[in-house]
Amino acid sequence: MRRTPGEARRRLLDAALGLYARHGVGGTSLQMIADELGVTKAAVYHQFATKEEIAVAVLQPAVDALAAVADVAEAQPTRAGRRETAVTGVVGLIVANRERASVLSGDPAMAALIRAHPDLAVQARRLKAAIFGAAVDAPEARVAATVLAGGMATAGRDPSLADLTDDNLRVHLLTLARRLLRMRVPHH
Amino acid sequence: MRRTPGEARRRLLDAALGLYARHGVGGTSLQMIADELGVTKAAVYHQFATKEEIAVAVLQPAVDALAAVADVAEAQPTRAGRRETAVTGVVGLIVANRERASVLSGDPAMAALIRAHPDLAVQARRLKAAIFGAAVDAPEARVAATVLAGGMATAGRDPSLADLTDDNLRVHLLTLARRLLRMRVPHH
Repeated sequence: MRRTPGEARRRLLDAALGLYARHGVGGTSLQMIADELGVTKAAVYHQFATKEEIAVAVLQPAVDALAAVADVAEAQPTRAGRRETAVTGVVGLIVANRERASVLSGDPAMAALIRAHPDLAVQARRLKAAIFGAAVDAPEARVAATVLAGGMATAGRDPSLADLTDDNLRVHLLTLARRLLRMRVPHH
Repeated sequence: MRRTPGEARRRLLDAALGLYARHGVGGTSLQMIADELGVTKAAVYHQFATKEEIAVAVLQPAVDALAAVADVAEAQPTRAGRRETAVTGVVGLIVANRERASVLSGDPAMAALIRAHPDLAVQARRLKAAIFGAAVDAPEARVAATVLAGGMATAGRDPSLADLTDDNLRVHLLTLARRLLRMRVPHH
């Protein structure tokens, strides 16, 4: 069976994530990724020129998913709808990426890549605007956005919450986010 | 003027914190601390046997302050009083330690020391019990505690909130904490 380029890329990024968990981003070389896959270093270079490019590519699906949530939120006709879509979307992504987040959290090289990722800042800004509307730059909105994002992300990667199911964690995070933002519980 | 042992210790810890900011905890040696103070390495060894002991001592005032908040909270006669004292005390400490937190956050060696600090876990547990009472081990309380602590700590070290005054940040954090915990605003 022939492998498509997309499959090879996915296998490489999965191997990189596994090595990051054991050795950290800074401690993972292109050679180690090649060894893990049983290929030559040249084969890895064929896809990625540097190890930084691989780490950025590991982040990219999460950034793309945030962009998709922002797209849907911005398309809602009401302020309440934009806010509800953005909050439920972000909570859903955090819960769906619990394992990845616990691997990558606390890694200084990954933290630096996240800070430097230009597209991530763009998507975060869009989501904040969807949630806070015209008040997005007021101090209370800025503090609330940081508490919300920091609190939700911490819960997503907290090993002491690993015993909760995804559904259970999602319900609790949504309840807390709604309280923080004083949102009404939507009626279906 | 003679220096007391307490003064010498405080100078040493201040020097260590300054070096941590520039070189990281892992990149700061006893020799570098000695050089910064203009003393011999033996003089540093006279006070601390290892560089880990210095990093733990840098953390200790914050842990002691959390213990003091827990002491006062536990002495309150009502559940609402214990909760109010614990929440306002923790928010006050976060705001008072903004600069230190922004220096130490994201440092992997400091993160490991924080995780391994036995007394910090004890004080965190006492504060959670003061805030959540008998429900402290229920999933909703555990998730709320993580979101609260992670959200407040993130805001305390967020460079994008550095333009807010301490008083301004404190007011917003207290408002958000009360919403998250569904606390009434106290009447004075």
